[in-house]
Amino acid sequence: MKKHNFSAGPCILPQEVFGKASEAVLDLDRSGLSILEISHRSKAFVDILEEARGLALELLNLQDKGYQALFLQGGASLQFYMSALNMLEKKGAYLDTGSWSAKAIKEARLLGEVDVLGSSSDKNYNYIPKDYKVPSDVDYFHCTSNNTIFGTQIKDFPKSDVPVVCDMSSDIFSRDIDFSYFDIIYAGAQKNMGPAGATLVVVKEDVLGKVSRKLPTMLDYQTHIKKDSSFNTPPVYAVYVSLLTLRWLKENGGISAIQEQNEKKAKLMYSEIDINPLFDGFAAKEDRSTMNATFTLNKPELKETFEQMLADAGINGLNGHRSVGGYRASMYNALPLDSVQLLVEIMDELETKA
Amino acid sequence: MKKHNFSAGPCILPQEVFGKASEAVLDLDRSGLSILEISHRSKAFVDILEEARGLALELLNLQDKGYQALFLQGGASLQFYMSALNMLEKKGAYLDTGSWSAKAIKEARLLGEVDVLGSSSDKNYNYIPKDYKVPSDVDYFHCTSNNTIFGTQIKDFPKSDVPVVCDMSSDIFSRDIDFSYFDIIYAGAQKNMGPAGATLVVVKEDVLGKVSRKLPTMLDYQTHIKKDSSFNTPPVYAVYVSLLTLRWLKENGGISAIQEQNEKKAKLMYSEIDINPLFDGFAAKEDRSTMNATFTLNKPELKETFEQMLADAGINGLNGHRSVGGYRASMYNALPLDSVQLLVEIMDELETKA
Repeated sequence: MKKHNFSAGPCILPQEVFGKASEAVLDLDRSGLSILEISHRSKAFVDILEEARGLALELLNLQDKGYQALFLQGGASLQFYMSALNMLEKKGAYLDTGSWSAKAIKEARLLGEVDVLGSSSDKNYNYIPKDYKVPSDVDYFHCTSNNTIFGTQIKDFPKSDVPVVCDMSSDIFSRDIDFSYFDIIYAGAQKNMGPAGATLVVVKEDVLGKVSRKLPTMLDYQTHIKKDSSFNTPPVYAVYVSLLTLRWLKENGGISAIQEQNEKKAKLMYSEIDINPLFDGFAAKEDRSTMNATFTLNKPELKETFEQMLADAGINGLNGHRSVGGYRASMYNALPLDSVQLLVEIMDELETKA
Repeated sequence: MKKHNFSAGPCILPQEVFGKASEAVLDLDRSGLSILEISHRSKAFVDILEEARGLALELLNLQDKGYQALFLQGGASLQFYMSALNMLEKKGAYLDTGSWSAKAIKEARLLGEVDVLGSSSDKNYNYIPKDYKVPSDVDYFHCTSNNTIFGTQIKDFPKSDVPVVCDMSSDIFSRDIDFSYFDIIYAGAQKNMGPAGATLVVVKEDVLGKVSRKLPTMLDYQTHIKKDSSFNTPPVYAVYVSLLTLRWLKENGGISAIQEQNEKKAKLMYSEIDINPLFDGFAAKEDRSTMNATFTLNKPELKETFEQMLADAGINGLNGHRSVGGYRASMYNALPLDSVQLLVEIMDELETKA
């Protein structure tokens, strides 16, 4: 049975990507070798890596603007520390919009002062703080563009005179914004870009090299820039599948086209949440994420019925995160509109049974 | 045409592993989902990770001895720093047997004193220093069990009263030694264990928690132990393919059986290097690696002919590392004896043309 995968990440990738990714494990481009056994110094892989790095910048419209795209490892969790290590000389300013922001703040505090400009922890992170200004006496401003767990998303980024560092793990490549506003963007691949195991870091070179501490080699962005993202063995397969996904995005019209699709899916989903009396949306309406819709069922006696209907329809990964409860429909780039349509129909049907 | 893959890493994996690894990208165990799209918190993946962690310990004969197996990211290159960060309070002792050892020493020096007990850099690392003692006033002793670039391997490890940390990237699971001698073993997956993108760390819990510095969350082994190697999203596919490879190893008799095969391959290879007047072995005979045989062709005028013969036979990845030159035959666990036999025949045939 076809599954409709609403997982929060790792998550659905385009079907054609799975097909090509599977073939390459047996034979990469008729080379007689598996993608898993080729050297990371082989021409075949150097070409893959360079195309992926270039395509990431191209899709973000950051080519020839002083940025470098790196495919690293360790996920956003390592970037919390690494970004501060490269940027925090005296003080960093952070916006606290969820669990991941809070973790980033924790790591930065190991290295210097942290100014938390705003926090929505008072309401279990169900909104984005807006009443703050980015000071000009900090080394950088750090924010999380989309909060997977809570289903909120920053719609307008604040004016900033200092470099901006953004954890964009869960909404990169999903909406057409001015990416040149950011100086460092990092994102675990496992939402809109590829499988788990690669971390994209897009960095404007001129913000680096300004801290006085001596950096460990692997945690210095400049190490990876100098070695074209191949200082050590890159996560070959995760980079390859990311490339397939980025190619798919480009062939399908790039970010502006996918944004249109994402908005259609989100509109359909949130309309149902708002209209259907059985469900309550969790996030403040103006801050709702187009990627992750969080909602609860307000008639607990229908829980079993609802979940059986979901299972019967092949809907997977709809459980909410334990810190919010209820349900979470993750609607990343590769999730078809049909899957959302089906979910909405089931929610409708549940209403008739109530 | 069938390729004979002598790459130094990433490298050949068992053919049946490629087959299963390819299938799982389309459909993991008839779940209707790709291994690339399942949640790392799903039962399917938690089972995979736990089996892989258990099997790694079982194959190393380290079960129920206070060890934990972790699947991390960042390769041995990140472990150079991370192992020192977790272990170096005042002074670490290092054996310098090659480029990777030297890199480990460099990272440790960021954190404290380093006592280099011996170095073979005077002879371009073509041997293993033996005339040294591990002092008892250091926090730990660090060594590299096999030197991929130079083709040397430690055969006898020194007596040590302090914890032993070993970079075993290029010969883990290849020979039957007493692994309980080591307190921390780390290894990039991409030689004998799986594809690039996962790093196995086997750590004896009781050596941890003894440094006074505050550790960044992701660089603290205890973080990953507490969270069963799932503090953040693990490199799902690299872990899965590692599991397939470890299962293959177990089904084929485990480490002692593969050691027998590895010794057969090495004996065949080195006999040819020693007998054939056209070739010179690089590494000191008593320190020769069973994994990587390094050698040069002493008649430069035959280079083109030899390399054409290799290409015609489908032999791949035989180029030596630039710091040694010549050739390197990497004969990891999954390389069939047939491939070595073929290479030796070509070397023989070249002699008849000389």
